[in-house]
Amino acid sequence: MTGDQLREAHRADLAIEGEEGVHFEKAWADPASGTVYCLPEGPSAEAVQRVHERTGHPADERNPVPLSV
Amino acid sequence: MTGDQLREAHRADLAIEGEEGVHFEKAWADPASGTVYCLPEGPSAEAVQRVHERTGHPADERNPVPLSV
Repeated sequence: MTGDQLREAHRADLAIEGEEGVHFEKAWADPASGTVYCLPEGPSAEAVQRVHERTGHPADERNPVPLSV
Repeated sequence: MTGDQLREAHRADLAIEGEEGVHFEKAWADPASGTVYCLPEGPSAEAVQRVHERTGHPADERNPVPLSV
């Protein structure tokens, strides 16, 4: 996972997110472990996952964060 | 974990973060699981943890994210 690959994956999500009422606010990656994180906002975890499936990178884990500061 | 508790924990980190050269950009919580997440920037994971220890909420996990978009 390089910076270019992260940007491209995020761009692909942004391109279709509106169709699911989702917005991907930010994404992060750790090239050493190959782990990618993203911060989406949307109507459901399923809606988020549908975007990720269509863009070819379904999430392994989902962690709801209803509170933020 | 309520919204007030999350705000107070974040405020406590912000109050002393400068002493370790750290900045806590954002924090999130899931009241259902009791899990709290934060996004710090700083010179090392140890510097971040020192702030959290002084404010009474050391982190159980650290996930480096050198890339972001």
